[in-house]
Amino acid sequence: MKVVIIGSSGHYNYAIEGIREDRDVTIVGVAPGSEGEDVSPAYRAACKIGHVPKVYDDYRIMLDEVKPDIAVVNCFFGHHARVTMQVLERGIHAFVEKPVATTFEDLEQLKEAHSRSGVHLAAMFGIRYSAHFITAWNLVKDGVVGEIRLMNAQKSYKLGQRSDFYKSRSTYGGTIPWVGSHAIDWLYWFSGQKFESVFASHSTRYNLEHGDLEVSALCHFTFSNEVFGSVSIDYLRPKQAPTHDDDRLRLVGTRGVLEVRNGKVYLINDDIDGIREVPLLPKQNIFIDFLRQIRGEGECLVTVHDSFYVTEACLKARQSADEGKVIRF
Amino acid sequence: MKVVIIGSSGHYNYAIEGIREDRDVTIVGVAPGSEGEDVSPAYRAACKIGHVPKVYDDYRIMLDEVKPDIAVVNCFFGHHARVTMQVLERGIHAFVEKPVATTFEDLEQLKEAHSRSGVHLAAMFGIRYSAHFITAWNLVKDGVVGEIRLMNAQKSYKLGQRSDFYKSRSTYGGTIPWVGSHAIDWLYWFSGQKFESVFASHSTRYNLEHGDLEVSALCHFTFSNEVFGSVSIDYLRPKQAPTHDDDRLRLVGTRGVLEVRNGKVYLINDDIDGIREVPLLPKQNIFIDFLRQIRGEGECLVTVHDSFYVTEACLKARQSADEGKVIRF
Repeated sequence: MKVVIIGSSGHYNYAIEGIREDRDVTIVGVAPGSEGEDVSPAYRAACKIGHVPKVYDDYRIMLDEVKPDIAVVNCFFGHHARVTMQVLERGIHAFVEKPVATTFEDLEQLKEAHSRSGVHLAAMFGIRYSAHFITAWNLVKDGVVGEIRLMNAQKSYKLGQRSDFYKSRSTYGGTIPWVGSHAIDWLYWFSGQKFESVFASHSTRYNLEHGDLEVSALCHFTFSNEVFGSVSIDYLRPKQAPTHDDDRLRLVGTRGVLEVRNGKVYLINDDIDGIREVPLLPKQNIFIDFLRQIRGEGECLVTVHDSFYVTEACLKARQSADEGKVIRF
Repeated sequence: MKVVIIGSSGHYNYAIEGIREDRDVTIVGVAPGSEGEDVSPAYRAACKIGHVPKVYDDYRIMLDEVKPDIAVVNCFFGHHARVTMQVLERGIHAFVEKPVATTFEDLEQLKEAHSRSGVHLAAMFGIRYSAHFITAWNLVKDGVVGEIRLMNAQKSYKLGQRSDFYKSRSTYGGTIPWVGSHAIDWLYWFSGQKFESVFASHSTRYNLEHGDLEVSALCHFTFSNEVFGSVSIDYLRPKQAPTHDDDRLRLVGTRGVLEVRNGKVYLINDDIDGIREVPLLPKQNIFIDFLRQIRGEGECLVTVHDSFYVTEACLKARQSADEGKVIRF
């Protein structure tokens, strides 16, 4: 199977890690997806695992020449949708950095392009496959917390010095869609409920000359069956903190509370005394799961529907924060 | 100084603990504040620390006969305001269970009664004085997190079997005002900002035959200067959990993140490597602080303004949850 990588601004490493384990996949080309994008990091990563991709200036020419089976799309975030449409129109499977679109118009056009294409598309919700989240997911599916009623999710990042494309809404898309999309995905994925409304806020203050980039944000989602979920997002994690990010999720159910914190999983429920740290399952890889679906060997944990629906939720949350009002689904 | 206790349904123990340390204060009377309220717990607690209060059936007769300096009000929550108005109209200082009112009308009348009275009033925001919160407060005042930008507060309780008055909105007031008020107070107290808006949700589902009592709730506050705060509230803490409650507060600032969790305080900031568990200051007592103000020896950490303002915020959050819309301040 032939893979190309378009762009180098997101998590192409999910694909690199997956391809390293799979001798039947070859990275044949690399090209920028946005003007001025440096693709040397993705090129070097591919070489490092033994592939020798050809480097193109224009990803459309690459797609037409190489005719790959799969395109990994991770250019500037505001261009994901436009590039992915080109991929889908050529009947190529798309493994796309989230959010898959940064405007409602792009999202609608992308959905239409996908429905005409007959190929698979998945957003890079790769954190689902980490040891702690996949462990939590299996526990919740086993019913350890009963019915989920309330959820609190957190994304906290160090800001550092970000590339220029983070500083403009048109190329970056916003902190709720970029950083928050993971957490918004967790709420939806774990609860299994439908989004009903969102109220959100965000602020660019204290962003250390990062233009439009919001460094603090808060979202309040309501779901079907009176399930509620908060998402707290910030780029204010101190430089000296032991890790880049501080991902957390707390799930409060009718018979237990489960928490993901510090890469660990903690459970309190009616069956056990005190708080139990649950042993972790091995981490998995999203790209391997994506390949599995393409090969007809199973359904990818991140479905096309999930990829579009969570993007819609991100954009509605951003709209709520921009306009200061509740947005309904 | 003479103290009476009206009701036995809230945190009269704050007063008991304070009075135990103060030989100049005598508990002279106990009476119910709500019809059918059992005051024997407060009576026994007073006796246990060496006082022999007279028990009255009618708190108004008690107030008129005993002419106390201070009344501790903690009857059914829906009656706090009505009882406290009687206290204030007699020129008696009021130490009142939070929320000090459960309707906007009661709150307005109470404010007017207070402004005519010339006495002190404080809501029982006693958690401010716990070792972990007073330690966090001192750190924040010292600037360890810089400017607070984002806050996440949590109240999680075991439900157990609650008295009947919890099952009706008119006597209980709602979970956001009762359980949430502490957390709403923290957001206001720590940030030092003004409330600007609230969006909230609550649900009575899975409340195990507790009538109107909401077992899950979520609030999203916006404050002045684009500061945001979430409050997550539930009664779903499993029976087997090591403590009754799981109070948490996370404060994200421009130069650090401070967390209160599990009765401990954790700090990450630009001055230290990694995460530091901060040694705790000794806990204090809110009633002793209240006495200090009455004696002209200092200002109580919980001001009259705080007591009313946080109550207003609780009622606006409850209104938002009832009506499903954003409420502005």
